[in-house]
Amino acid sequence: MSLHKRDILSVKDLTKEEIVKILELAKWYAAKGRTDHFKGKVAALCFFEPSTRTFVSFDLAMKYLGGSTTGFQSAGATSIAKGESLQDTIKTIDSYGVDVIIMRHPQIGSAKTAADIAKSPVVNAGDGSNEHPTQSLVDLYTIQERKGDLNNLHIGVLGDLKNARTVHSLILALSHFSPRFSFISPKELAIDDSYKEELKRKSIDFREVENVNEVIGSLDVLYVTRLQKERFETLEEYEKLKGSYNIGRSILEGAKKDLIILHPLPRIDELSTELDAVENAAYFQQTKDSIAVRQALLALIFGVPS
Amino acid sequence: MSLHKRDILSVKDLTKEEIVKILELAKWYAAKGRTDHFKGKVAALCFFEPSTRTFVSFDLAMKYLGGSTTGFQSAGATSIAKGESLQDTIKTIDSYGVDVIIMRHPQIGSAKTAADIAKSPVVNAGDGSNEHPTQSLVDLYTIQERKGDLNNLHIGVLGDLKNARTVHSLILALSHFSPRFSFISPKELAIDDSYKEELKRKSIDFREVENVNEVIGSLDVLYVTRLQKERFETLEEYEKLKGSYNIGRSILEGAKKDLIILHPLPRIDELSTELDAVENAAYFQQTKDSIAVRQALLALIFGVPS
Amino acid sequence: MSLHKRDILSVKDLTKEEIVKILELAKWYAAKGRTDHFKGKVAALCFFEPSTRTFVSFDLAMKYLGGSTTGFQSAGATSIAKGESLQDTIKTIDSYGVDVIIMRHPQIGSAKTAADIAKSPVVNAGDGSNEHPTQSLVDLYTIQERKGDLNNLHIGVLGDLKNARTVHSLILALSHFSPRFSFISPKELAIDDSYKEELKRKSIDFREVENVNEVIGSLDVLYVTRLQKERFETLEEYEKLKGSYNIGRSILEGAKKDLIILHPLPRIDELSTELDAVENAAYFQQTKDSIAVRQALLALIFGVPS
Repeated sequence: MSLHKRDILSVKDLTKEEIVKILELAKWYAAKGRTDHFKGKVAALCFFEPSTRTFVSFDLAMKYLGGSTTGFQSAGATSIAKGESLQDTIKTIDSYGVDVIIMRHPQIGSAKTAADIAKSPVVNAGDGSNEHPTQSLVDLYTIQERKGDLNNLHIGVLGDLKNARTVHSLILALSHFSPRFSFISPKELAIDDSYKEELKRKSIDFREVENVNEVIGSLDVLYVTRLQKERFETLEEYEKLKGSYNIGRSILEGAKKDLIILHPLPRIDELSTELDAVENAAYFQQTKDSIAVRQALLALIFGVPS
Repeated sequence: MSLHKRDILSVKDLTKEEIVKILELAKWYAAKGRTDHFKGKVAALCFFEPSTRTFVSFDLAMKYLGGSTTGFQSAGATSIAKGESLQDTIKTIDSYGVDVIIMRHPQIGSAKTAADIAKSPVVNAGDGSNEHPTQSLVDLYTIQERKGDLNNLHIGVLGDLKNARTVHSLILALSHFSPRFSFISPKELAIDDSYKEELKRKSIDFREVENVNEVIGSLDVLYVTRLQKERFETLEEYEKLKGSYNIGRSILEGAKKDLIILHPLPRIDELSTELDAVENAAYFQQTKDSIAVRQALLALIFGVPS
Repeated sequence: MSLHKRDILSVKDLTKEEIVKILELAKWYAAKGRTDHFKGKVAALCFFEPSTRTFVSFDLAMKYLGGSTTGFQSAGATSIAKGESLQDTIKTIDSYGVDVIIMRHPQIGSAKTAADIAKSPVVNAGDGSNEHPTQSLVDLYTIQERKGDLNNLHIGVLGDLKNARTVHSLILALSHFSPRFSFISPKELAIDDSYKEELKRKSIDFREVENVNEVIGSLDVLYVTRLQKERFETLEEYEKLKGSYNIGRSILEGAKKDLIILHPLPRIDELSTELDAVENAAYFQQTKDSIAVRQALLALIFGVPS
């Protein structure tokens, strides 16, 4: 049950006990801040698709552990441009003997492909619309910090539930903690049947609605996601749906007083900045918490005594 | 009057005493070179617009202090491409708890916007055509090193005085040291009235000429700047004016023997390489000095005992 | 005969003794792995042309020596985009006082240009179709590891012998060790006369063939290279020749049992992945070995006691 040298490709790879352990260690790192416990450790950040947030967060997590990083921030700077296969790029990086490969790639399953090849542990930092497991660990951490307890919450998930990998990973991760879900989206962007079947199999209660107002009154957490322009086939489709999900200050009227609002960011129009200052907003706490959570996960991969 | 944890957005934010103190500490770092006084400190380099020189100079200043850096070298690698606002990017980076945010951005006032949001101190590394305060500190340092004294110099500033942020910051910074200015430019690129009014208010002597020969004989410093192609509205406008300001070896004929020539670089045609080898050229000393000056400024922000 | 602070622009700059010494020290670093012998040393990685492999390999070599790096991964992030000359960029980086400048540039002779200007030692990490000396040191190291001895080998070099800088550097480097060469290429991509004349002058045996089967039976090493799309003038020329050189598993049928196959990577179609698992394949050992070889070279430049 040790996470030592393990690949982290999906939240499915993690047991409830492992998730709890990561969150506990994250709390320790959040209090401790910077250490040099892992001086000399090196992570390769292989970002075939750009992402400020995730790149810098992992980069800092390594540095706050005393380690360092190498790699690339976008495919433009790589041999991919010369026609090299993902397999060859990963084999090459892996041959360099780094302590972990942290990978973002536009293609579903790419992290698994990399992990099958690499001797170094691979952390999936987002593979297309599939999964982004460390984001979910961050989400859980922030929810736990704000709510005190992860169990028995009513979670509303709003937006593009079809394409948002953060949603997929989150549902799987929360499933360990007796949640109730409300999926709020236009029909075109409804969550895939495979996820619904999994929830049924686990006897987890969920419902699907098109309008947030149908469920807002009983939500403990509202998780808002971006309509991901880059995953739509035409601009028209994107423009048509873009306007329909805008969460602003008025959402609080019918809500529980202690509702918290999360968003994996970046946001565009779906979440108004007028919410930033209210107590319910927890999305910039998520970005803050992301450092300690990633420190914890990396520390466990590198081998913290357990 | 401490610079500890202060934002550095404009040279206007610095008193004469603070400028003098930075230059003194820069002299100490120039002699000392590398130290590890600030081991564990981390700077986020947020370059929304590329710049080799400034990026690498700040990156090395941090490393020569024993610290490290994170961030991005151009907006292409960021969530900006996904439509994220500057505010959200800065809030995110700020939530990571870095010791300083060093920011280059094409938009005037963007550094101020960032500083208003961020808890971490923000250093403006160039905001559009507005300001570039650390470049001015470098300019002052090099002038002082070469001239022995910053006071009572006749400074000629040549080129695109309308758009060059380095010029704007330089004029403000030098104003503390009883200068006399000659502004040398085509009428289309003349310095803005706001700067002239400020000089009048401070009773600082200046004149505007179109031809450098009118003033060369009495100049102590000739500060040459690039016509910034990217700030022109049409290519024709740029091409028309480009050829008119080319400084070559002949400039020295009518000049004081100890005239020094500065340029913030990069240069294109406005300053001939035939000057590189002459004693009067000080522009590669500027690049060299930039490291020690930035080490000094960062050290003061991090909290050198004063 | 010391390599201390020396430029490494071409394998021609290295005597046989120096090559042997680098390979010996590389063996030591391959066994030792990471050290912090060169804590505080800084390399500027100036990559005007992207290259994952070489960039990350040098970056890690510095980090595994305890040092750090600065610089840029592609010209897009540099002042080159503003029209700055290579000379000025190098003068600037050089003025920052780094311990070594490691440079990749599309133009033949650019590394020499940089070295003529810079006080810091310059390592050529590829200058157009000219040379890539550290790749050749890696090639020699891997051959020696696999064959036990570098001397008296029959080396087949296959592919684009006209444009592949790695081939040019390799031929020069191997020439110290009594090799026999077979150059295998279409006539359009034959090796330049200058290299053939040099081999004649050194009384080194070589032949040119169009079909690998003519020589495969007696080869000790088969060195395969990519047709470099970016060096062809038209896409048609590239497409015409691309298909003619595909090395797959069948090549082993007529080959010596202990033939080793090398490739500087990246590969496209010229070398089949079906060879990856066979004992004869040595190309991912090359990537692995590249770290220790570069550690050794950098250590000697920084000044290992000899």
